[in-house]
Amino acid sequence: MKGGKFSFQLLKEGGGQARLGKVTTPHGVFFTPVFMPVGSQGTVKALAPADLQEVGTEILLCNAYHLYLRPGTEVIREVGGLHRFMGWEGPLLTDSGGFQIVSMSALREIESEGVRFRSHIDGSLHFLTPEKVVQMQEELGSDIMMVLDDCPPYPASADEAKEAVDLTTQWAKRSQGAKNGDGQALFGIVQGGGYSELRRQSAHALMEIGFDGYAIGGLSLGEEKEITFEIAEMVTALLPTNSPRYLMGMGTPEDILTGVRIGVDMFDCVLPTRGARTGVLFTSFGQLNIKHARYSTDTSPLDPACGCYTCRNFSRAYLRHLFLSRELLAYRLNAVHNLYYYHSLMRDIRQALSEGRVDQFVRAFFSQRGGKGGTSEEKGGERGC
Amino acid sequence: MKGGKFSFQLLKEGGGQARLGKVTTPHGVFFTPVFMPVGSQGTVKALAPADLQEVGTEILLCNAYHLYLRPGTEVIREVGGLHRFMGWEGPLLTDSGGFQIVSMSALREIESEGVRFRSHIDGSLHFLTPEKVVQMQEELGSDIMMVLDDCPPYPASADEAKEAVDLTTQWAKRSQGAKNGDGQALFGIVQGGGYSELRRQSAHALMEIGFDGYAIGGLSLGEEKEITFEIAEMVTALLPTNSPRYLMGMGTPEDILTGVRIGVDMFDCVLPTRGARTGVLFTSFGQLNIKHARYSTDTSPLDPACGCYTCRNFSRAYLRHLFLSRELLAYRLNAVHNLYYYHSLMRDIRQALSEGRVDQFVRAFFSQRGGKGGTSEEKGGERGC
Repeated sequence: MKGGKFSFQLLKEGGGQARLGKVTTPHGVFFTPVFMPVGSQGTVKALAPADLQEVGTEILLCNAYHLYLRPGTEVIREVGGLHRFMGWEGPLLTDSGGFQIVSMSALREIESEGVRFRSHIDGSLHFLTPEKVVQMQEELGSDIMMVLDDCPPYPASADEAKEAVDLTTQWAKRSQGAKNGDGQALFGIVQGGGYSELRRQSAHALMEIGFDGYAIGGLSLGEEKEITFEIAEMVTALLPTNSPRYLMGMGTPEDILTGVRIGVDMFDCVLPTRGARTGVLFTSFGQLNIKHARYSTDTSPLDPACGCYTCRNFSRAYLRHLFLSRELLAYRLNAVHNLYYYHSLMRDIRQALSEGRVDQFVRAFFSQRGGKGGTSEEKGGERGC
Repeated sequence: MKGGKFSFQLLKEGGGQARLGKVTTPHGVFFTPVFMPVGSQGTVKALAPADLQEVGTEILLCNAYHLYLRPGTEVIREVGGLHRFMGWEGPLLTDSGGFQIVSMSALREIESEGVRFRSHIDGSLHFLTPEKVVQMQEELGSDIMMVLDDCPPYPASADEAKEAVDLTTQWAKRSQGAKNGDGQALFGIVQGGGYSELRRQSAHALMEIGFDGYAIGGLSLGEEKEITFEIAEMVTALLPTNSPRYLMGMGTPEDILTGVRIGVDMFDCVLPTRGARTGVLFTSFGQLNIKHARYSTDTSPLDPACGCYTCRNFSRAYLRHLFLSRELLAYRLNAVHNLYYYHSLMRDIRQALSEGRVDQFVRAFFSQRGGKGGTSEEKGGERGC
C-alpha cells in the first residue's frame, strides 16, 4: 500500500485494552496489531524478500547495532539505504542496539555520554552515543528508528533501574534533538525494570519529550511472565492512545494474544525464525518438534489447516528428513511456515477486533491450547525473546 | 512437458561430435546436452523445487546411497516415492552410490557378490549388491537408474582397473537382470581408468548387455584434464549414437563445452551449488569470489548480463555482506545464480547446436575466457567433481 508521512490512526477499540490501528510510513501502510519478523543483519534468516511477501510480512525489523558492525551503516547509505540494500520495499523498523550491546558484547561501559563496548564479531572497541545511533539509522533510512536506551540485565536493583531510567530519558531527549527532519519516525523506549513507579516516571518523561511511538523495553529478561504483563499493562495504560505501542522482543503466540488484550500494537520476536532452525514449528494445534521419530513416514503436511508453501507442498516425513540431514532447505521451509503462522494469527486477531469479538477469539485460542501462557523455549541476542 | 516411456531421439549432429537430443521419461521430456543439478539427499542444497523451476532445471540428480542411509529408500517408497517426497515433478536420475562408497565410507570391501562398507553418518555396517541397488532405485521411483559400479580410486594400476571393469560388467549384467518392468530406464557405467583398451572392453561389454543409456565413470579423479577428455572422447566414439551418454561428475563450464564437442549429452556437477556455499560465482565473464573486499560497496548485480532472481534484485555489496555474515540467504541467492548460469549456458549450447554454429560458440566462449580448460576448484563426495 502506498505510504506517506508517518502517522498512526486508531481504528477501533474493544476486548480489554485491545486496539485495531493503521500505521502509515514512507514505505507503505500496515495495520496493527502487527508482528515484525526479525532480520537483524539485513535478512530474515533463510528467507528472501519474495518469501516475506508470500508469507504476509507487513513490516520488518532490522538491527542498527548489527548493521553498524557489519557491513557498516555508511556502506549501506552509499549503496542506497537499507531498503534497497536488502531488496525490501515495505516498512522497516530498526532497533537501536541498546539491548544487543547488553546481551552480546564482551565489554560494556555505560557513561552519561554513551556506551563503550567490544564488537561480538572481532572484539574491536566502539563508542556509541544516542546521537550517533540516530545518525546510523538515518544512514539506514528505516521508517521507524528506536532511541538508544540503557537496558540493564535482569535482575536490576531499584537503584540500577533508576539510573537506567534517568539515562534512558536523557538519551531519549538527545536522540529527539539529533533527528534530522521528520521523514523517519522515532520511538522512545520505556525502561524501569519490574518497578512500577520507575516505569511510570520513564513513560511520563518520554511522553513529555514526545515521540512518534512508544516501546516497552527491558521485559521478558528472565522475570515471571505474570510480572512481564503486569508491568506492560501498567505502561500501556499510561501511554497516549493516539500513538503506537511496541512490546519489544515478545513472544510466543500466547504472549501476543495477552499483549493485544493489554493494548500493545506492535510485536517482534525471533521465536518463529529461530524455531525454524531448531525444528520447533508453530501450528494451529500447538508446537510440534519435527525431529520426532513419529514423523518419519508421516505423509501429512505440518499443519493441515495451513496454506503456506511448505504445507501445500511437503510432508512431515520430508521436513524431518531435511532437518535431520541438516539441509539448508529445512530452515527455509520451516521459517516460511512459522512466519506464515504468525502473520495469519495477526490477521485473525485484527479480523476479530474489527468484528468486536476479540475476547471470544482469545478465549477460544487458549481453551484449545488447554491453558494460558506458552513459554519461549529459547533465548538469545534479541530483545527479551 | 508431458512424459512417456523412456526414449532418446537424436535431433541433430554437428560441431565435432556434438549432438542435440531429446529424452522422454515418465516424468517429462528434456533436451540434451543437459546439466543436472545435484540433490544428493533429496534436495538441491538451499533450493526449493520452485527455485529449480525458476532457474530452469530440467532433470535432477539424487543419490540412492545417501537416501538409502537416510531416511531409507523404503521410507521414501512408503510416502509415495522420491518425486512426491521432495516435491519435484520433473525427470529424476538417481546415482547408484558406487562412487560415494569409495569416496565417503570408512570401510570398503569389494567382493564379487557386492560391497561392504560403513555408513559415513553413523558407522553402521552395510552390504549392497547390484540387485539391492536396483531395488533401492525402484523404491525411489527415479526415471533413470544407474547400475552399481566398481569405481577404484585414482591412480589405479592396470590390474586394479581390469578387475574393476570385470566386476562392473558382472554387476551390470546382474543389475539389468534384477530390473522389474521397463517403467524406469537403467544406464550402464563404463570403467577402465586411464587405460583405453580397458575402456574399450568395458564399453563393448555393456553394449552387449544393452542399456537405455551409457555413463562414463571413473574420470576426473585426479588425472590430467587432457587424459580425462582423451578417454571420454575415445569412449563416446564407441557408444551407440541412439542412446544418451552421460559424463559423470563434470564439471566447470569449460569442461561442459569440451564434453559437448566430444559427444556427451548429460552432465552433473556439484560445482554450481558448492560454489554457492564457498562464495564462488559463475558469470558471463568468468568466476568471481564474492568475499573480495572490492565488492563491499559495489551496487552492480553479480552479472549484469544475467536475468536470475539474484541478479535482478540484489547488489554485489549485499551478497558479500550475506556471505561474510554466514547468512543462510547467501547460499540460496548464490545457488540460484550459479544454477541459472549453468542452465542458460546449456540452453545457449543447444541453440547453437540447432543452428549449426556450435564450433563458433565454443571458440567465442574460450576466447572470451582467454584459453581453454578451467579448473574445478573443489572436490568432494560427488562423482569426480
